[in-house]
Amino acid sequence: MSSIHEECGVFGIFNRNREHDAAQETYLALYALQHRGQVSCGIAVRNDQTVDCITELGTVPDVFNKDKLSSLTANGKGDVALGHVRYSAQGEEDEINSQPMVMSYEKGSISIANNGSLVSTAKLRKKLESNGSVFQTNSNAEMIVHLIARYRLGTSNIETAISQAMKELEGAYSFILMTPHKLIAVRDPKGFRPLCYGKLGDAYVVASESCAIQSIGGEFIRDIKPGEILVITDEDVYSNTDNCGQKTAMCIFEHVYLARPDSVIDGASVHRSRLNAGKFLAIEHPVEADVVVGVPDSGIDAAIGYANQSGIPFGLGLIKNRYIGRTFIQTTQKQRERSVQIKLNPLGNEIEGKRIVLVDDSIVRGTTCAKLIKKLREAGAKEIHMRISSPPFINPCYFGTDISSKDKLIACKLDIDEICRFIGADSLGYLGIDSMMKVAENSGVDFCSACFTGEYPVDVTGENYVDKYSKKIT
Amino acid sequence: MSSIHEECGVFGIFNRNREHDAAQETYLALYALQHRGQVSCGIAVRNDQTVDCITELGTVPDVFNKDKLSSLTANGKGDVALGHVRYSAQGEEDEINSQPMVMSYEKGSISIANNGSLVSTAKLRKKLESNGSVFQTNSNAEMIVHLIARYRLGTSNIETAISQAMKELEGAYSFILMTPHKLIAVRDPKGFRPLCYGKLGDAYVVASESCAIQSIGGEFIRDIKPGEILVITDEDVYSNTDNCGQKTAMCIFEHVYLARPDSVIDGASVHRSRLNAGKFLAIEHPVEADVVVGVPDSGIDAAIGYANQSGIPFGLGLIKNRYIGRTFIQTTQKQRERSVQIKLNPLGNEIEGKRIVLVDDSIVRGTTCAKLIKKLREAGAKEIHMRISSPPFINPCYFGTDISSKDKLIACKLDIDEICRFIGADSLGYLGIDSMMKVAENSGVDFCSACFTGEYPVDVTGENYVDKYSKKIT
Amino acid sequence: MSSIHEECGVFGIFNRNREHDAAQETYLALYALQHRGQVSCGIAVRNDQTVDCITELGTVPDVFNKDKLSSLTANGKGDVALGHVRYSAQGEEDEINSQPMVMSYEKGSISIANNGSLVSTAKLRKKLESNGSVFQTNSNAEMIVHLIARYRLGTSNIETAISQAMKELEGAYSFILMTPHKLIAVRDPKGFRPLCYGKLGDAYVVASESCAIQSIGGEFIRDIKPGEILVITDEDVYSNTDNCGQKTAMCIFEHVYLARPDSVIDGASVHRSRLNAGKFLAIEHPVEADVVVGVPDSGIDAAIGYANQSGIPFGLGLIKNRYIGRTFIQTTQKQRERSVQIKLNPLGNEIEGKRIVLVDDSIVRGTTCAKLIKKLREAGAKEIHMRISSPPFINPCYFGTDISSKDKLIACKLDIDEICRFIGADSLGYLGIDSMMKVAENSGVDFCSACFTGEYPVDVTGENYVDKYSKKIT
Amino acid sequence: MSSIHEECGVFGIFNRNREHDAAQETYLALYALQHRGQVSCGIAVRNDQTVDCITELGTVPDVFNKDKLSSLTANGKGDVALGHVRYSAQGEEDEINSQPMVMSYEKGSISIANNGSLVSTAKLRKKLESNGSVFQTNSNAEMIVHLIARYRLGTSNIETAISQAMKELEGAYSFILMTPHKLIAVRDPKGFRPLCYGKLGDAYVVASESCAIQSIGGEFIRDIKPGEILVITDEDVYSNTDNCGQKTAMCIFEHVYLARPDSVIDGASVHRSRLNAGKFLAIEHPVEADVVVGVPDSGIDAAIGYANQSGIPFGLGLIKNRYIGRTFIQTTQKQRERSVQIKLNPLGNEIEGKRIVLVDDSIVRGTTCAKLIKKLREAGAKEIHMRISSPPFINPCYFGTDISSKDKLIACKLDIDEICRFIGADSLGYLGIDSMMKVAENSGVDFCSACFTGEYPVDVTGENYVDKYSKKIT
Repeated sequence: MSSIHEECGVFGIFNRNREHDAAQETYLALYALQHRGQVSCGIAVRNDQTVDCITELGTVPDVFNKDKLSSLTANGKGDVALGHVRYSAQGEEDEINSQPMVMSYEKGSISIANNGSLVSTAKLRKKLESNGSVFQTNSNAEMIVHLIARYRLGTSNIETAISQAMKELEGAYSFILMTPHKLIAVRDPKGFRPLCYGKLGDAYVVASESCAIQSIGGEFIRDIKPGEILVITDEDVYSNTDNCGQKTAMCIFEHVYLARPDSVIDGASVHRSRLNAGKFLAIEHPVEADVVVGVPDSGIDAAIGYANQSGIPFGLGLIKNRYIGRTFIQTTQKQRERSVQIKLNPLGNEIEGKRIVLVDDSIVRGTTCAKLIKKLREAGAKEIHMRISSPPFINPCYFGTDISSKDKLIACKLDIDEICRFIGADSLGYLGIDSMMKVAENSGVDFCSACFTGEYPVDVTGENYVDKYSKKIT
Repeated sequence: MSSIHEECGVFGIFNRNREHDAAQETYLALYALQHRGQVSCGIAVRNDQTVDCITELGTVPDVFNKDKLSSLTANGKGDVALGHVRYSAQGEEDEINSQPMVMSYEKGSISIANNGSLVSTAKLRKKLESNGSVFQTNSNAEMIVHLIARYRLGTSNIETAISQAMKELEGAYSFILMTPHKLIAVRDPKGFRPLCYGKLGDAYVVASESCAIQSIGGEFIRDIKPGEILVITDEDVYSNTDNCGQKTAMCIFEHVYLARPDSVIDGASVHRSRLNAGKFLAIEHPVEADVVVGVPDSGIDAAIGYANQSGIPFGLGLIKNRYIGRTFIQTTQKQRERSVQIKLNPLGNEIEGKRIVLVDDSIVRGTTCAKLIKKLREAGAKEIHMRISSPPFINPCYFGTDISSKDKLIACKLDIDEICRFIGADSLGYLGIDSMMKVAENSGVDFCSACFTGEYPVDVTGENYVDKYSKKIT
Repeated sequence: MSSIHEECGVFGIFNRNREHDAAQETYLALYALQHRGQVSCGIAVRNDQTVDCITELGTVPDVFNKDKLSSLTANGKGDVALGHVRYSAQGEEDEINSQPMVMSYEKGSISIANNGSLVSTAKLRKKLESNGSVFQTNSNAEMIVHLIARYRLGTSNIETAISQAMKELEGAYSFILMTPHKLIAVRDPKGFRPLCYGKLGDAYVVASESCAIQSIGGEFIRDIKPGEILVITDEDVYSNTDNCGQKTAMCIFEHVYLARPDSVIDGASVHRSRLNAGKFLAIEHPVEADVVVGVPDSGIDAAIGYANQSGIPFGLGLIKNRYIGRTFIQTTQKQRERSVQIKLNPLGNEIEGKRIVLVDDSIVRGTTCAKLIKKLREAGAKEIHMRISSPPFINPCYFGTDISSKDKLIACKLDIDEICRFIGADSLGYLGIDSMMKVAENSGVDFCSACFTGEYPVDVTGENYVDKYSKKIT
Repeated sequence: MSSIHEECGVFGIFNRNREHDAAQETYLALYALQHRGQVSCGIAVRNDQTVDCITELGTVPDVFNKDKLSSLTANGKGDVALGHVRYSAQGEEDEINSQPMVMSYEKGSISIANNGSLVSTAKLRKKLESNGSVFQTNSNAEMIVHLIARYRLGTSNIETAISQAMKELEGAYSFILMTPHKLIAVRDPKGFRPLCYGKLGDAYVVASESCAIQSIGGEFIRDIKPGEILVITDEDVYSNTDNCGQKTAMCIFEHVYLARPDSVIDGASVHRSRLNAGKFLAIEHPVEADVVVGVPDSGIDAAIGYANQSGIPFGLGLIKNRYIGRTFIQTTQKQRERSVQIKLNPLGNEIEGKRIVLVDDSIVRGTTCAKLIKKLREAGAKEIHMRISSPPFINPCYFGTDISSKDKLIACKLDIDEICRFIGADSLGYLGIDSMMKVAENSGVDFCSACFTGEYPVDVTGENYVDKYSKKIT
C-alpha cells in the first residue's frame, strides 16, 4: 500500500421513455467513476420482469466488450440499470463480492450497488441469522438487503422499510436499489460518502460523483442529502427524509485525494479544494525555491495552488508513465527499488540545479516518497522541500477507505522531523488541521476528520480493521 | 437437442487424518463424473474455519489448472471437500447457478452440491420469502439450504432439521452438505437419482456413481438408501432413516443412458443392464442380418448384448470423432446436414453389402438417426434394421433430465411405422416396457417409468417444463 | 511418452466454381485428421491475390471459432485453402513452427503444409545459407520452399522445380503447396506417409487420409503415388512422375496405430489391417480364456480380430474416460500412480473371476501397461494374457513419428519374458514380423519396418534423434 | 485517426558480466517506450547458442506476465536482449509483423528490432527475390536482414556488410541487431528517427529515446549519429561511420508530439522544445485572455510555455479520463458524439465565464477539436482562442508516422479562417514554420519538415501511402 484507496463508485439510471440504452449509459458513467475502484465492476439491467447482470474482476474496459454490453439488453427493454466499480483491500480480489448484487425477496427482484463500510455488522448479522437468514457473502450490501426485506414484511412500501432499516445501520453507506418499479438512492445520515442525482434528457441518473453525470452529457440537479431516501418512479421523484438532520461527517479525504477534481460535492468544487489546500500550504509553510512540482496526478492541483500563492513558477518536473497498470512485474529487489523511476521519471532540465517545492496529497509509509526524492537529487535538484496537502494521518478509517492498521502509517511512528529525515527532504510541511477543514469552499456539510484527529463520528469501539476485510465465510 | 442429458454429478470427501488432499481427490473424481454435466463445475474446500470455492463454466479440464487447484488448499488444512459438475437446459449457461454453493447461517458455513430437480418449488419459495428470505438464484440447492436453516432454529442438530425439511421437498434430489463439522449425504425418499459412499484409506467419500469412487482407487461401501441422511463426522458415521421406506422410483434412464457403464447402482451393474436390454431386444425384435453395429458410445453395450443373444457378429461399423466438442461450428445448412458424418463416419468395408442391425439407446427427434441411416446406405449397407434399447418416450421428465416438451419428441407425434419411415430404416424395434423394467438385475429399488408411461411417482400437476428452466430472477 | 505419435496431418481444397467455402471445408476436414496432431493447427486461404492464414497452438476447436473462420474469407473469394494439424515432440510447443506457412518468392505467394521428417537437413541448410538464404524456423517446410524457390529461378514451371528439388530431399514428406494458380500435392518417393485426393462436387481435395475426404462428404479418387507431384489448376489435373518408381517404404505403423481405422491407405483398409493383426496374433499366440478385452481405443479392432479367430467372446472390460485431455493435472506421485485408473477403469462384472486376453497395439515403456494389469487384477481378473498387435520395436524412427531414443523403449532393454514379468502378465505374445508385413491386405506399396528390424530404407548415418527436435535457431 | 502516431520503439541490452537479467531490463525499458507503439510488443533474448523470443499483440502489460518473462531466460544465461513496441496503421494488427524478428543465416542467428519506414522497397524486394530469397512478411525488418545476409557472403564482418547494405536502403530506419557475439545499433544517414545508447552498470544499452535509459536507472552516453553503425561486443564498443556526414533530416514531429517530454534527442530536450513552441506561439499569436489551458496530455507543455511568455495564468481546465483504452465501445452515433466528453471533461469552475487560450500540438481532421470547443462553451467559456504548437501539416509522411492521405487532413482542404470557423474557435493561430525549426535548442541535427513544406529529404516519387500499409503477401 503506497496510497489510499476509495472503496467503490455507484451509478443508476431510470428511463422514462426508453430514450437511452440504460446499459450503455451506465457503461460510460462507470468510466468516469473508474478512479473509485479498479478491482471489479458490474452492470445490472432491468428487462421487464427480469434482471440481467454482469459482474467480473477487472476494470470497465477489461470486463465489457460490445457483445457483453448488448447481451445485457437482449432480453427486454433495458430501461433501468445499476452500475458499480469496486476497490478492495489487498488481496481481496474475490469475485463473489462484486456488485451490483441481484437478489429476490417477497416483492420481487431487488438489486443493490453500495459505496461505504458499515460498523457493528457482526451484531446485526447474528440477529438476522438467528431469524433464519442465509448469507452468501460478507458484503455489507447483502446484509442491507436482508434487513430491508425483513422490515418490508410489515410495511406498506419499500421506502418506509428502508427508513426503519437505516436505524439499525451504523457507518458509511451510499447505495442505489433497483426494484421492479423504482430506483432508490440512499445516503447515510452522516453523509460519509458522496451521492448525487441529475437528469439525462427525460431520464433520471444517480451517481457517486457529479463528474459521472457531466461526462455522459447529463445535467446535475443536487446532492442526495445525508439521511435522505430519494425514490424515482415512472411518475414521480420524491424523498423520505426521516433520517435527515443529524450532524454530518463527510469524508474530507474525498476532497484531498479520492474524488475526481472535476466533481462538485455538497456544493464544493474538488479542484478548488485542492487549489485551496495548496494555497494554505504556501501560507503555512513558505520557502524560497525556483519551481513548484506536483507529484502526478494527485499532487498537481495543490502544486498549482501553491505556485499561484507563492509566486514561484509551476513546472512539470516528473513525467508519469501512463502505461503502468496493475500487472507491473517486479521480480527482484533491485527492480522494486527502481520501480518509482519507471513510474515517475524526473524531467532533467526542469530539475537540474533547481530548488524544488514538491507537493503531494499525503504520505502513507514514506518509502515511495523517499525513493522519489532520491531520484530528484540524482537528477540534480539542489534543494527539495516536501509539502503535503493534508495533515498527518494517524488513525485507521472504518468508513470505506483502506487506510490500514497503524503500524503501516509512518506518522504513527515518527514525528515530522523524523519523517523529513526518513524521506530525505530539506524541509517538510503538512497542511494544518484547521486549514484542512476550510479547503472545501461553500460546502453544505461538516467533515469527518477521524483519520487526522481520532474523533470518530460514530462509535467504533470493538471495530477491528483486519476483521472488516476477512474474505471468507466462517 | 439430439439426446437426453443428465443434470448433475456430486462428490464429497471427508478426511479423518489429512491422508489425502481433498481438493485433488475431488478434482479426480469429477473427471469420472464429467459425463453427468459439462456446462460448469466447481470444488469447495473446508479450510479450518473458512471455505474456499471455485466454480466456473466449463468442463473440469477447462476450469481447473494446477494453480487454481492448489489455491483451494492454500489457506488451511483442506481436509473436507465438495465437488459438482452440472449440465443445464439449452442456453442456461449462467454462471450464477454453478455449484457447490457456499453459504453461511446461524451455525456457521454450509455448502451444498445437488443433483436432481424439485417440483412444487414456487409454493415453497413463496412461503420462505413471506418469512423474510432473500434469494440470489433460482437454484433448488439454495432453496434447500434456506429451508434447512429455518428448521435448524428449533432443532438440536442439523440432521433433524434436514429430516423435517425433507417433508416439504417434493421431487428428485441427491445432495451433499458440508458444514464446519460434518459431511452429510441426502437422497430423496423416491431415490430418483443415485448416490453412494465408500472409503479411500481412512477417508470417507460420497459420489453420484460408484465409478467415481473406484476411479480414484477407493472402495465402494453401499448406496445411500432412498430417504436416508448419512452423516460423516470425525468420530462417527451414522444415518437418519426417518424418511426411508416409501415406494421408490429410481430413474430407469440412468441404466439406459445416463450413468457410466462401469457404475453399479442400487446393486445393478449399468453395463449388465445394457447388455440385458440388447439381449431382450434381440428376443423381442429378431431379424436376419450380417452384423450388429452400435451407435457410439451409448449404443455399443446393447449392441454387444444383441449380438451375443442373436449370434450375429458384433462389428465396428461407425467411427466416432473424439475431438468434436461443444464448440463445433456449423454455419451453413449444408454443414449441418453433413455434421453427422463428421461425428460418425461409416467404416466402409464393414458396411458395404451388409445387412445391418443398428442399435441405439433412444430416438429423440429422429433427425440425427435419419441422417446416420442415409450415410450408412451411401456407404453400401444393404439393409438397416434399427433397434432401440428403451421404449418410446412420450412424456416430459421433471426430475432432472432435460427431456424437453412433447413437441420435440418424435414418438409423441408419429407411430412406430411412421418413425421407421421417417428415419429410413428397413425395420424398427423398441424395447418393450416390461423388458425395460427387468434389465437392471439385482436392483434393490423400483423404477420411475414416467417418461414411457406417464405414471408419475409424485404429483406433477401444475408443473410446466419451460418454467423449470427460466433463467432469471423475477 | 506412453504411446507413439504421428507428426502431422494435411488437407487442401481447390474450388473450381466457388461451390464451397474453402475455409469451412478445411475446418471440417481437420477435425477428421485431428488424431494426427493436437499441438497446433492452422488454415491458410487464398483470397484473390492475397493469402489469409491463422495458425495457433491447440486443437481445431481450441483455435477456431465462428469469427476467426469467417475472417479467413472476409477479404476475397476464398476458393482455395490449405490446412494442417501438428503433433510435436515433448515440450516442442513453439508456435513459430505451426503450419501452414505462408511465404512469398519470385513468382508470388507460396504456402505449404507438410507431414513427415527429412533426414540430412543440416547439409542442405548449410548449402542454402551459403547462397544467402535467411531462415525463420527449423521447420522442414520452410527449407523445402527455399529449395523450390531456388530451383524455380531457372525453370519454366513450379512442378519442374519441385521435381528437381526432390532429388535433394531425403526422408519422409507428404506436402501440399498453394500458389496463386495451383494446388500441388507431393509425396516422397518412398511413400513414407499417406496422401490421397478426391472430389467434393466440382472441387478437388487432397488429404493425409481418406477418412477426411469421406467425412466431409467427398469422393475418394486415389492415393498420390510415392514420388508423384499432382498439380490441380482451374483447367486441369496432371502429374509429374519423374521421381516415381523407387522401392517404397510406407510406414507400417500407420496401419498398426497412427491412422484412423476408417481410412484406406494405398488400397488397404486400416481397420481390416488391425482385424488381421488380431487374427494372426490369435494364431501365433493362442490361449484358453473367457473374454478378449481391447485397450481403448487403439486395441479394440485387434481385440475383435482376436476374438473372431479364437472363438473367445469379445467384451468391454475397460471404460475410457472421454474427458481427460492434455491438461490433466497430477501433482503428487500418488496421483501419477493412479492416473491409469482415472483414464481406464475396469468394468467390474466383466472382469471378476475371468481369464482375460488383453490386446493392445504396442508397449513403449511398459509402465502404463503394468499399472493397467495391476488394476485388472484388483478388479478380480483370474489370468491376464497380454497380446500386442505389432512386433517389439527397438529402433528409433527418423521419419515423422516420435518413437524416442532407445533408452525409453522397454524392448531394447528386456527380453520378452522379462517384459512379461515387468508388466505382471501371465503370458505375453507379440505379433511376428512376417505377420506384421502381411496385415495390410491389397496394399499397393511395400513397408518400412525399421523400427522393428533396424533396416532403414534411406541412409540415416549421422542422424541424431535429439537433434531433429532442437527447438531454437542456432 | 484523430492524432498522429509514431510507428515503433526499440531497445537492446548487452551484459558483460551477467550483472542484469536482460529480459527484465528490456521489459522495464519497453514500458518507457510504450508511447511509441501499443499494437504489439516483443522481447528476444540470447541464451548461449539459441534465441528465445516472445512477440504478441497488445501492450507490455497485456503481453508479459511473470511466467512469460522468466521463460525467456530459462534456457541459458540470458545476457543479451532486444525489445520492440509497435504501432501500426489502421487495422494492421497482424501478429506476423510483430518484432523482434528472429532469423538465422550463414553466420548463425540474427535478430532485429526496427523503427522507421523505407521507401523504394518494391524494387529492392524484386531484386532479392530474383536471387532466390523467400519472404514471410512485408516488414522492412525482414528485408533489411535479407540484404545484410547477401552482403555478408563476401565480407569479413557484419558491420561492413551492413555498411554496404545501407547504400541500398532509402528512407527512415533505426534498428538494433543481435547476433551470436554482437549487439549493433544502426541509424539511417538522414537520422529520421532517434536512437541513442548508454550504460547500465557494466552493461551497454541502446534505445529509441533517452527516457528509456534513464527510467531503468542507466546513464545516457550519446545519440547514435545519423549513418553510424555502433557495434557492442564483449571486449569492445566501436563504430563504422562510412555512411555518416550526409545532410540530416530528423523528424521535427518527434519534438512536437511523438517523443516523451523527458527525452533529450540529439542534444535537445523535448520538453524544452515544447515550452519553446508555446513561447513562440505566444509571441506570434498573442491574445487577451484569463487562462491558458492545454489539451492533455500533449498540449500541456506548450500551454505552460505560452502562459509563461504571455503572463496569462496556466490552469487545469480539462480532466482526462485515464482509464479509456483501446477497447472503448461506442455503438451509437450519439455515443460517438459524446465520446470527447468521456475522455476530456471540462473543469467547470476553471472555465465558466473565462476567456481561454486552448493549446494543442496539432489539428488532424478537426472534428475532435470542434467537439471539445463545443463542450467548453457549454461549460461557460466566454471566448476560446485556439493555438497550435506546429504549422498546418499538408503532406503525407513516408518515414514512419501514420499521417494519412491528404483527404483526411483538414489543412489540405481549408484555409486557416475556414478551419477556425469549422472548429468554432474565436481565433486560431498556428506556429510559423521558421519558429518550428528553432524550437529544438542545441540540436545537433537538421530537421525534416516535409509534412509542413512538401520538401522531402529523399526521393519519394512513386511512393503511395496506401501501398506502404497493405497487409498481406501478394
